[in-house]
Amino acid sequence: MRLLLSLFLALLLNACAGPQVRGTGDLGLIIERSSGYVTLVNTTSRQPYARIGGLGDLSHASAVYSRDGRYAFIFGRDGGLTKIDLLEAKIVKRVIQSGNAIGGSISQDGRIVVAQNYTPGGIKAFDAETLELLSEVPAEHAPGQFSKVVGLADTAGNKFAYALFEGGEIRITDFSDPKQPKTQRFPAGSQPYDGLVTPDGRYFMAGLFGEDGIALLDLWQPEKGARKILEKYGRGEEKLPVFKMPHLRGWSVAQGKAYLPAIGRHEVLVVDVATWKEVGRIPVRGQPVFVMARPDGRQIWVNFAFPDNGKVDVIDTLAGQVVHRMEPGKGILHMEFAPRGENVWLSARDDNKVVIYNTENFAKLGEIPADSPSGIFFTSRAARIGF
Amino acid sequence: MRLLLSLFLALLLNACAGPQVRGTGDLGLIIERSSGYVTLVNTTSRQPYARIGGLGDLSHASAVYSRDGRYAFIFGRDGGLTKIDLLEAKIVKRVIQSGNAIGGSISQDGRIVVAQNYTPGGIKAFDAETLELLSEVPAEHAPGQFSKVVGLADTAGNKFAYALFEGGEIRITDFSDPKQPKTQRFPAGSQPYDGLVTPDGRYFMAGLFGEDGIALLDLWQPEKGARKILEKYGRGEEKLPVFKMPHLRGWSVAQGKAYLPAIGRHEVLVVDVATWKEVGRIPVRGQPVFVMARPDGRQIWVNFAFPDNGKVDVIDTLAGQVVHRMEPGKGILHMEFAPRGENVWLSARDDNKVVIYNTENFAKLGEIPADSPSGIFFTSRAARIGF
Repeated sequence: MRLLLSLFLALLLNACAGPQVRGTGDLGLIIERSSGYVTLVNTTSRQPYARIGGLGDLSHASAVYSRDGRYAFIFGRDGGLTKIDLLEAKIVKRVIQSGNAIGGSISQDGRIVVAQNYTPGGIKAFDAETLELLSEVPAEHAPGQFSKVVGLADTAGNKFAYALFEGGEIRITDFSDPKQPKTQRFPAGSQPYDGLVTPDGRYFMAGLFGEDGIALLDLWQPEKGARKILEKYGRGEEKLPVFKMPHLRGWSVAQGKAYLPAIGRHEVLVVDVATWKEVGRIPVRGQPVFVMARPDGRQIWVNFAFPDNGKVDVIDTLAGQVVHRMEPGKGILHMEFAPRGENVWLSARDDNKVVIYNTENFAKLGEIPADSPSGIFFTSRAARIGF
Repeated sequence: MRLLLSLFLALLLNACAGPQVRGTGDLGLIIERSSGYVTLVNTTSRQPYARIGGLGDLSHASAVYSRDGRYAFIFGRDGGLTKIDLLEAKIVKRVIQSGNAIGGSISQDGRIVVAQNYTPGGIKAFDAETLELLSEVPAEHAPGQFSKVVGLADTAGNKFAYALFEGGEIRITDFSDPKQPKTQRFPAGSQPYDGLVTPDGRYFMAGLFGEDGIALLDLWQPEKGARKILEKYGRGEEKLPVFKMPHLRGWSVAQGKAYLPAIGRHEVLVVDVATWKEVGRIPVRGQPVFVMARPDGRQIWVNFAFPDNGKVDVIDTLAGQVVHRMEPGKGILHMEFAPRGENVWLSARDDNKVVIYNTENFAKLGEIPADSPSGIFFTSRAARIGF
């Protein structure tokens, strides 16, 4: 079945591949997690236009873009780092940079691609043009002890923030001199398991697995150190069963409020970003995984862990409650909004398709076949901070 | 001198023009206000790559982009609407759509370009593909009386918000059915002279020339009508001499605060966007014209009206004061930040050049010759709301 699907997709798309004189602002890609393929898509026509294979293990893979929007850098689970040309629809370069990796990021000036690795624990910086290794910063938190790195995100001035799972640290590494990186270390709490930078690039937050609460570092004043906020955020004293730890990267800030997935509870937490205090909870239909704001912040789209991973709830931030409930497909893994938010694309892994909806009236606009799709990444990310 | 400069620029750039297979995420254009030219630029190399003439009167001209980033739509002062191909570096189509125009906008879905006109007063919608006229909405505020239209900006759902100078209204026109637009009208106060939509697309604000204060319409709840905020904002009772009315489009929202040019005073006002109350004033070296936030909100760059139009002040929003003062050239008219904010480009009209600075250390990175440059517009605007 999977082979047949792959052949079908290849036939369908082969005719269209090849170099094109065209803008890149409305392009993107869909990760096909189990087959090592990516499908390239156009968000104006809402159609795929090419498919590229040979990218290795793409479970939990993610992508960032060159500042011209032409090239994608795809970080695979197996340590593969692949540079793809969206116009020529081909692999430009591929390196295996570690044994076990979990995403990466690109510097503000677009020159440096940084991968975060579990094994060996640390980060590595590559020249975005050539993928030549520039430097590496091992996540050695005690002599001879190396941590898994999580939550890597770019910040201003070619710096990157990330956290060390075993080390319990947040780090900032400055690659302004790419072969001589400088690293600052901040104690952050027990077992940070994921992190994010707020949309304005100011705060790095790390979720903690080993204790309740969130570690917060003000990147504008890192000398103040990391502090703990939302002391009750976590699995709590009851230690509820958690089917899947939520993705922090999906956190949303809209209208001065942050919307966070509760852990183990069927709720989205609302937090005032001026005080970092919880100001509300919104009931939803499952354990939230991604809690993502439409670019204008009017809506928050929420998907869920098993067994509710076929459902999606839409919160209206003005009404403060869920205003639309849908079941767009089986195994909804990820969502990506069109740059200005008119549409949303959702990966339905177990239906082997991506489904596209109008966010204003919730009408279904189309679907795209894909082999176990997971992450969806549009080129508009090239212009954003904190990815 | 001007002719010589034009010839020199044409020679310099002609070799590089022509269709290119390349990304469009790092492209942009510089308006050369008095000669009818635009210079096309690359923000990665920080170099011009082509120059296009024949665009008519470009004083006060502005540009928006197609959602793929390939095409720019340039609104001239003489009613000219010109569609440019940034990859082929040529004019695709040009129409004279009115006698006297003042900018325009593009719909959320990228299909409709709307121009706002002084004469005849009203807005006109064009097909973004062909520039075919789809419909027009005259700004008739009383039988037989037509207003100048100001402050046009796109909002969610292919709607556009704008204000009527003589009519004293804010209007929202919905082009979801482009040949059958629907318009809502809201009384807004005396002589709105410019407007903007907040970066999240939620609020439309119009500055008032005929009275003090700002008219504010919540686009999420337009049924509540426009209300007046900042009652003292304006020329005040003393009626200070105002050398140039500031551009509202340059207003900035950063970290929950809006930064506004004071009118006639050497100050930038700080307003809490949760309450819309003034919470501070920052002294600067002239009457501010544009008050623009770096994309991360850490810095606010301010230029000034004559006779201080050779100066630029940089406010650090964390420190709440000016931290850098510079004189980057004569007649600084406009500023544009690189999409992720690492650099800023400034038009020095009377020096016939655009100067480029690093925003982190204020180092000068280069300059580009241009004939009386005014507006600078990068393709990253394609992905933004409210332009």
